[in-house]
Amino acid sequence: MKNVLCIMSDQFEELEAVGTIALLRRAGINVTVCALHEKQATGRFQITISDLTDVSEAQADTYDALFLPGGPHYAELQENPLVQQLIKDFDKQQKYICAICAAPTILGQLGLLKNRRYTCFTSMNQDFGGEYVNEYTAIDGNLITGRSAAAVIDFAFVIIEQLLGKEKAEEVKNSIYYY
Amino acid sequence: MKNVLCIMSDQFEELEAVGTIALLRRAGINVTVCALHEKQATGRFQITISDLTDVSEAQADTYDALFLPGGPHYAELQENPLVQQLIKDFDKQQKYICAICAAPTILGQLGLLKNRRYTCFTSMNQDFGGEYVNEYTAIDGNLITGRSAAAVIDFAFVIIEQLLGKEKAEEVKNSIYYY
Repeated sequence: MKNVLCIMSDQFEELEAVGTIALLRRAGINVTVCALHEKQATGRFQITISDLTDVSEAQADTYDALFLPGGPHYAELQENPLVQQLIKDFDKQQKYICAICAAPTILGQLGLLKNRRYTCFTSMNQDFGGEYVNEYTAIDGNLITGRSAAAVIDFAFVIIEQLLGKEKAEEVKNSIYYY
Repeated sequence: MKNVLCIMSDQFEELEAVGTIALLRRAGINVTVCALHEKQATGRFQITISDLTDVSEAQADTYDALFLPGGPHYAELQENPLVQQLIKDFDKQQKYICAICAAPTILGQLGLLKNRRYTCFTSMNQDFGGEYVNEYTAIDGNLITGRSAAAVIDFAFVIIEQLLGKEKAEEVKNSIYYY
């Protein structure tokens, strides 16, 4: 069983977060969803997700990958010392870090995009010292990035393929008639 | 302002429900989300959405469209007299009925797919007396249908285009780099 840690706070983007979580779980991946406050989070489009785990309980050791959804919550995630430490721990252990839309810029601010191939929400790209690619998804080693909400299905399937292999990804794609 | 009513219960499919709601709200459409129980619902992939409206407060008159997400909750929606009445009311008033994946089969059981062009989760299709099309989305008058979770972004943009016009739909597509 593969284990993924997702971190969100208020103002997360719902399609990116919930779409990815739902597809990973459909593939049989265990996803633990953490919130920064009160074990719940309300997205930028007013959808409240409850019954979440507290971020202080999260340890990189337990997981195969970290997933950071986009949305305006990125600014809060970026400033949070626990989140910063978790990102660094996942990277140090060469575990997958999966970030979409605004979230790859958090990695950029931490210096993790240096000399890496990545994508992010195009208008938020800066000189992070890496190679920005204008595509739905990018993979570079342990780094999986997605450009925007529109890329969420492709992004989730890249994660599934990296964690469970091409055959499993194809099986899940077929099960939802995704061609 | 356009108003859409969404109805869900436990075992709804999260990508279809949340993806559509998030994209409609991104386009400036007001979406009221109703639950059958306790003003909350837990999806088939264990995501709990809270702070919802009670379905007994919903009236077709107030809305421009009804949105039914897919997932195993379809069986409960189909048996619920309030939901059945709402669907009939939306149809009688020629308001849009938007259903994806398993949800179009609810319309089929109520006889609303007769002589209509529609799609639904392929393996759940039956002889509903209409024309099944094996595509991501189908429009026939006030009926907008989507095939599966994989179709959610296209499905949401068809609803946006029908409610707000092609120009607005293109504007929202461009804002998330959806090509």
